[in-house]
Amino acid sequence: MRNIKLILEYDGTFYHGWQKQPGLLTIQEVIERNLCSLLKEEIKVSAAGRTDAGVHAKGQAINFITSTSISPCAIRRALNSYLPKDIRVKKAEIVPLDFDARKSALSRLYRYTICNSAFQPPFYCNFTWHIPFLLEINKMSKASRLLIGRHDFSSFQSQGSPTFSSMREIEKSVLFKKGRFIIVYIKADSFLYKMVRNIIGTLVEVGRGKISLPEINSILEAKNRRVAGPTAPPQGLCLVRVKYK
Amino acid sequence: MRNIKLILEYDGTFYHGWQKQPGLLTIQEVIERNLCSLLKEEIKVSAAGRTDAGVHAKGQAINFITSTSISPCAIRRALNSYLPKDIRVKKAEIVPLDFDARKSALSRLYRYTICNSAFQPPFYCNFTWHIPFLLEINKMSKASRLLIGRHDFSSFQSQGSPTFSSMREIEKSVLFKKGRFIIVYIKADSFLYKMVRNIIGTLVEVGRGKISLPEINSILEAKNRRVAGPTAPPQGLCLVRVKYK
Repeated sequence: MRNIKLILEYDGTFYHGWQKQPGLLTIQEVIERNLCSLLKEEIKVSAAGRTDAGVHAKGQAINFITSTSISPCAIRRALNSYLPKDIRVKKAEIVPLDFDARKSALSRLYRYTICNSAFQPPFYCNFTWHIPFLLEINKMSKASRLLIGRHDFSSFQSQGSPTFSSMREIEKSVLFKKGRFIIVYIKADSFLYKMVRNIIGTLVEVGRGKISLPEINSILEAKNRRVAGPTAPPQGLCLVRVKYK
Repeated sequence: MRNIKLILEYDGTFYHGWQKQPGLLTIQEVIERNLCSLLKEEIKVSAAGRTDAGVHAKGQAINFITSTSISPCAIRRALNSYLPKDIRVKKAEIVPLDFDARKSALSRLYRYTICNSAFQPPFYCNFTWHIPFLLEINKMSKASRLLIGRHDFSSFQSQGSPTFSSMREIEKSVLFKKGRFIIVYIKADSFLYKMVRNIIGTLVEVGRGKISLPEINSILEAKNRRVAGPTAPPQGLCLVRVKYK
């Protein structure tokens, strides 16, 4: 048996997210179905990030156990010729049998993009959150840095995916303006359900003057989803990279 | 009566091109339907470029005659709130009554984008032509410059849209590499049916070594569609700008 790791890039616009769901088109279902017809065996994949419907990936990491002798390079090429154009395999390699894309991940890096201009170019409507009003970038940037460190992120966790602990460690959190776009990079050991999108929704409230900088700490302390800002829409979010040992 | 000019930006992926066709979703149909319900009168628009199915626009120019007293700015805002997100009105202004977006245009600038790498990022699959093999950029660039000037472009005209003359003047034709992309800008007084895509298909044949540089002149002289290269796919093409007096 061999363990194969793949790095995927996808445009999540037309998928109901990563995770398999009966009767819905998901990335996992498409990947497993194509691996199954290629390798002529049942394949179960594990993924580093369970991206939601409409969320994209530049570097999703997945792995699966297989008895095939086909080389990783040939698997990558064959998959790319079968897969729809909005899903690509960037890399394929053999990893130790105990490697698990989800459990072995040290950290995940996400990027969120806001289009902050009166007019949203049609080419970006599936990849950015359009906010036509003025935002205070400096305040948003300061607020994003207040989240760095090990905290209980209950206030930024949506219901639907219970976990043992809401403690997470944000290693990096930067927000900057680039032309008409506001770009946020957040890196953490792992994320709670919709945590990035709930953080973004809160940072936008800071930018609009609805939440002050000192309130960010009170929101963290409250451990209550209702005190933080709304959930940002999915299309601005992208899983950029997953780090392993 | 007033004559209103609009500049449109659109992602043509999900449309059967600009021109109205019974039973098909086209940009013209969407624009006229929305103008009609906004202005409460029958509206007929004229466009500078009849973009094909899957072709995009950054700066399509259109105009229409109306009896409305609503300001151009209010028309732009109202349209942008009604239109689907893949079509935006960038600009609206009052122009002289004798202005016609098609007939008054002095030139059109088109851009074609090729993704020239083994791997096509999913985010570009609706906006570039993926060519995974090596192309000789220098030769393609030289070939593109050979087309500049006033010529009979019959060899680059697809059947389907008869015109009085096949003489056109290409004012600008440049091709360059930018990262993994090959970008071509072509500007002419006007274009024959599928002329840009037939030129691109031919330039790619030059890049593959199937057509030599001297053959470009013979192709022009032949005035025969069969001697030129194939038609490049639509998704790489974008109408960038239309010039008026």
